[in-house]
Amino acid sequence: MAPKARTTAKARNEERRAEILRAALEVIAERGYRGASLGAVAERVGLTQQGLLHYFPTKDALLVAVLEARDQWDAVPTNEIRLDLLGSLVEYNAMRPGIIQTFSALLGESVTDGHPARDYFTERYGSVREKFAAVLRAEYGERLPGGLTPEAAAPLLVAVMDGLQYQWLLDPESVDMVGAFRAFLGLLGGGERDARGE
Amino acid sequence: MAPKARTTAKARNEERRAEILRAALEVIAERGYRGASLGAVAERVGLTQQGLLHYFPTKDALLVAVLEARDQWDAVPTNEIRLDLLGSLVEYNAMRPGIIQTFSALLGESVTDGHPARDYFTERYGSVREKFAAVLRAEYGERLPGGLTPEAAAPLLVAVMDGLQYQWLLDPESVDMVGAFRAFLGLLGGGERDARGE
Repeated sequence: MAPKARTTAKARNEERRAEILRAALEVIAERGYRGASLGAVAERVGLTQQGLLHYFPTKDALLVAVLEARDQWDAVPTNEIRLDLLGSLVEYNAMRPGIIQTFSALLGESVTDGHPARDYFTERYGSVREKFAAVLRAEYGERLPGGLTPEAAAPLLVAVMDGLQYQWLLDPESVDMVGAFRAFLGLLGGGERDARGE
Repeated sequence: MAPKARTTAKARNEERRAEILRAALEVIAERGYRGASLGAVAERVGLTQQGLLHYFPTKDALLVAVLEARDQWDAVPTNEIRLDLLGSLVEYNAMRPGIIQTFSALLGESVTDGHPARDYFTERYGSVREKFAAVLRAEYGERLPGGLTPEAAAPLLVAVMDGLQYQWLLDPESVDMVGAFRAFLGLLGGGERDARGE
């Protein structure tokens, strides 16, 4: 095979994988991971199930690729995260309900016994709590204006993001996810209290 | 049938239903609702699937009964909820990881398309936000010491409870669910800040 043809074949392969990943995200959003079938993903991209297995040999392999893809999309170098960027992240999330639905469904399933995404979420959350504590420390030092330590506030920050996502996905008309998250940031920073007399 | 025999039959029937509900809670905790089968529930209580259908004619009927049972267990008359009782509720939840796992898995699944628990969670969360806002108003009036209105704080309170449950279920050694929730109550009430100089 000539170099050019090889590059084209590789590019086509990558494109196909990306297409399958997008379909998998949709199917998981609709049915959850346990309810998702490789057949449904294959059908959505016009492949047979056998054809799909050429790209992802098992359902779990496809899940791993979905989780890795998320880490790639959402990765921001730790030293570049600032507290106000978290508000922007929630704003960004509010524009992509499909992806948020996929990962909210996966997080919910991950607490069931032996779920293949359990270790991923356990490790991810441990490292996200650490990152958030570092961000809070960089912003406020050892004690936040609201009174908490960075380590006490970090799990609350994660919890508010996740918890608001469920309420918002269930009832987007009633829940202002972005406004509520910014109100929470204000609470951590003592900002709401400062504005109290206005 | 003599009245006594009828009573006994009714009592046995109730007992059997309760037993099936407990088994359903376990199976949902282990596999989620979509991953749960009536056969697995039936097996756990020593019934055939056909025998189970005598008590619950469909899988959805069993789910409805599970959700109703939860509302009965956890119902506290609205005028008796106080803010500090929410801390006790989280403490109580920390002693029943099985039930919390069941409902965290169901909440996660409920955001997927056409899930049979979706309306239940949407309505429940709307009414829980209203109740929590009323509790916060009774405690603090129109503005919390931390600066938020009761309506702005209520979805955060719900989010923190739910979000902490996922982190705690995934990694109970690393996440102090009760302590974190009480820290959040302190933040809402401005109490942590008062303790800052200690």
